[in-house]
Amino acid sequence: MLNSKPLIKELKKNLSPENVLSTVEECYAYAQDAANSRRIKNIPDAVVFVRTVEDVQRVVMNARKYKIPIICRGAGTNVVGACRVEHGGIILNFSKMNKILEINRENMTARVQPGVVLGDLQKAVEEIGLFYPPDPSNLKVSTIGGSIAQASGGAKTFKYGSTKDYVLDLQVVMADGRILRTGSNTVKNATGYNLSTLFVGSEGTLGIVTEAVLKLIPKPEAEKVLMAYFDSVESAVQAVNMIIEQKVFPATIDFMDKNAIQTVEKFYPAGLLCDKECALVIEVDGFKSSIDYQQKIIEDILYKCNAADIQCSHNQEEYERIWTARRSSMGACAKLKPNVTTDDVIVPRENLAKLVRGINKICEKHNLTACLVGHVGDGSVHPQIPIDYSDEDEYKRYKLAKSEIYDLTARLGGIISGEHGIGAEKREYISKVVNNVAIDYMRKIKSTFDPDNILNPYKIF
Amino acid sequence: MLNSKPLIKELKKNLSPENVLSTVEECYAYAQDAANSRRIKNIPDAVVFVRTVEDVQRVVMNARKYKIPIICRGAGTNVVGACRVEHGGIILNFSKMNKILEINRENMTARVQPGVVLGDLQKAVEEIGLFYPPDPSNLKVSTIGGSIAQASGGAKTFKYGSTKDYVLDLQVVMADGRILRTGSNTVKNATGYNLSTLFVGSEGTLGIVTEAVLKLIPKPEAEKVLMAYFDSVESAVQAVNMIIEQKVFPATIDFMDKNAIQTVEKFYPAGLLCDKECALVIEVDGFKSSIDYQQKIIEDILYKCNAADIQCSHNQEEYERIWTARRSSMGACAKLKPNVTTDDVIVPRENLAKLVRGINKICEKHNLTACLVGHVGDGSVHPQIPIDYSDEDEYKRYKLAKSEIYDLTARLGGIISGEHGIGAEKREYISKVVNNVAIDYMRKIKSTFDPDNILNPYKIF
Repeated sequence: MLNSKPLIKELKKNLSPENVLSTVEECYAYAQDAANSRRIKNIPDAVVFVRTVEDVQRVVMNARKYKIPIICRGAGTNVVGACRVEHGGIILNFSKMNKILEINRENMTARVQPGVVLGDLQKAVEEIGLFYPPDPSNLKVSTIGGSIAQASGGAKTFKYGSTKDYVLDLQVVMADGRILRTGSNTVKNATGYNLSTLFVGSEGTLGIVTEAVLKLIPKPEAEKVLMAYFDSVESAVQAVNMIIEQKVFPATIDFMDKNAIQTVEKFYPAGLLCDKECALVIEVDGFKSSIDYQQKIIEDILYKCNAADIQCSHNQEEYERIWTARRSSMGACAKLKPNVTTDDVIVPRENLAKLVRGINKICEKHNLTACLVGHVGDGSVHPQIPIDYSDEDEYKRYKLAKSEIYDLTARLGGIISGEHGIGAEKREYISKVVNNVAIDYMRKIKSTFDPDNILNPYKIF
Repeated sequence: MLNSKPLIKELKKNLSPENVLSTVEECYAYAQDAANSRRIKNIPDAVVFVRTVEDVQRVVMNARKYKIPIICRGAGTNVVGACRVEHGGIILNFSKMNKILEINRENMTARVQPGVVLGDLQKAVEEIGLFYPPDPSNLKVSTIGGSIAQASGGAKTFKYGSTKDYVLDLQVVMADGRILRTGSNTVKNATGYNLSTLFVGSEGTLGIVTEAVLKLIPKPEAEKVLMAYFDSVESAVQAVNMIIEQKVFPATIDFMDKNAIQTVEKFYPAGLLCDKECALVIEVDGFKSSIDYQQKIIEDILYKCNAADIQCSHNQEEYERIWTARRSSMGACAKLKPNVTTDDVIVPRENLAKLVRGINKICEKHNLTACLVGHVGDGSVHPQIPIDYSDEDEYKRYKLAKSEIYDLTARLGGIISGEHGIGAEKREYISKVVNNVAIDYMRKIKSTFDPDNILNPYKIF
């Protein structure tokens, strides 16, 4: 058992006591993240609020001396247990290191601290006509640091790419206490190894990000969202293929299955058609003058593919209504049982219909109900499974289903996370989809960067 | 001195003799790449043509036994000496491992061997309405393997990103002979460390890429190019800022300075205006119906910024004429003196005008003439300096100017390569722009991946 007491004492001295929480009562709230796991296993030894890179360096140097793990946390919204303390350690809390340091219109870059809330950054850049596309559904609370750690995507990844495509440079405190700058304040960089993207998705296991320079792009002038219902997933996927063949590149092609539609409609009535097999939510953007043109092409295709009904946003209110329905599925699912789990599997798009059908079959077999939402454009599915953790049998069935869903994903050439990360919850499964050689090199990188294994240990692999 | 003879003997046996060139006469042609350095220092010990991943594994296992360096080569078009043999070693020639293995329309991916010519891939995917944007100017001969090794960009990086944004998965033969798959056949991946982009720009120093899965996007329906002249670089940059403020996102915003314009017009007359300080070459793309709209916004801004003259492509012929003029500058420069050097510096766009002015000042001081072309959107400049290598004094002045240009770039917050790489030619300068901690971690990664230092040694750092 690790003894954190001397470390905590030093940290209280070095960072002033009010920045270091160390009673069980204070630390209890930080034992979980949004993975919302079944049992609280470990309570952090301390929670340390940092405000500057020097604070972080001080913590790292001290933690290293005592070999105490450091687990970084922003808003704690990740759903894979990435900021959970597994076998002792301290939480480094970035919620107060949350300044937008610069938005540079001419360079089209933003320089931010890791605790900045993603939605706040988006708002700030949109005010001057710029755009930061990564849009995980929790963006109103989740932080930039977390989105870098977990390689966040979102609905707009299809057209605009994910977090890794927008990180130009990171300031990182390494396990040896030194400060690394990973990249440059330029949109292209062929000057040495690409360290910036190595940190994106590394879940705080290689170094502690203390500042990020992000790429921005011009904000599209207008957007519109369409919702269309289908009697089969195959027809929906077929429509998507035809849209792309027509050289239309929607910002989003999202997906809800029957269960998701019905569950949303039950708890948050929005006029959804509950007898249909699935719905597509398609957002187009661009010049105002192009929006109707795109809508017309898409509608023609949707009808050709036997779409049962097409709703279209004619104003901001209708736009919000459709998106709110799509985004409410997790909340609605949570009302079905005491708990709800969400997952994140992704396959080549040609196998998406098989994945959806297969997940339903697996859940049926284990007497579970899954609400499926996802990003069809990316081949990404988020199965949301309501369960009751206190029901031992149901929990066992859920664990079996989860493992079988990953097996199916692997068979379909996919991977077990497209945009949530692996964390503590999925590490036992990573070898289903990542070959041994890759895991071996990931481990080599980890031990090169963090030889004492103090940075978020017991995560990813 | 390394003794390659036993290795060559084994390779002739294992790969059949006609695939292994080993006489000085045969190998001489591979002593240089397009860096076109002043003196040929080293002739490769052998040139080995590979066709399969097993061939590559065989070479690696043998080379490792004898500790003989392996330097990969596609078309040899890189301009930084990245595929030059520095102190003995064999060239692994991928020009015959050049199959497009699959273009998958539904997944929007291409699976290719490293020897595929970039332009051939572009043509093949465009035939089915898809698009692979990275477009280095040598794309008619350069290979995918080379573009991955050197992190190629091109004119369209501004809107579409560079090679790193399009590599989803790589098959790599590692220094220990094992095969690594770096990613997945999906557009998002948050399953472990991002190994794919670690290899992009690593110049063959970490492993040998034998297959790549590349992301494709829908091909824009139409495009148009505008060329506008200005009396100052500042006005040109100002116009670019105003275009972006109007939410127009051109595919390309390229740049030619007075010297480049005059030199092109001298050798390849295209009706360019030779009395102007610089020209912008702006390409817009998108739906056919949006092209004129974009053109109008841009023209209005250009006139507001005192553009002297605006030419616009109304058909394919005019489109080609403008682009040929822009792309001819290197060839035209080569006619001014026996040799020509090209470089690749990039700064935050707000400092572009200062960089252009500063490069001209430095060249003037050293009695050199630079033709400057570049990608304004990215803040990227390619100084092309015609020189006579046999003129000792001029060569000395050129070396001084080069170093001073890098110092200036560093002072302006930039880096010494945005899209060409570092190779052998620029490694002595990398510490001007990359901090010691980053170089230290790059070295750590290198020695973790390649402990015997047999993969393209003496490159990058």
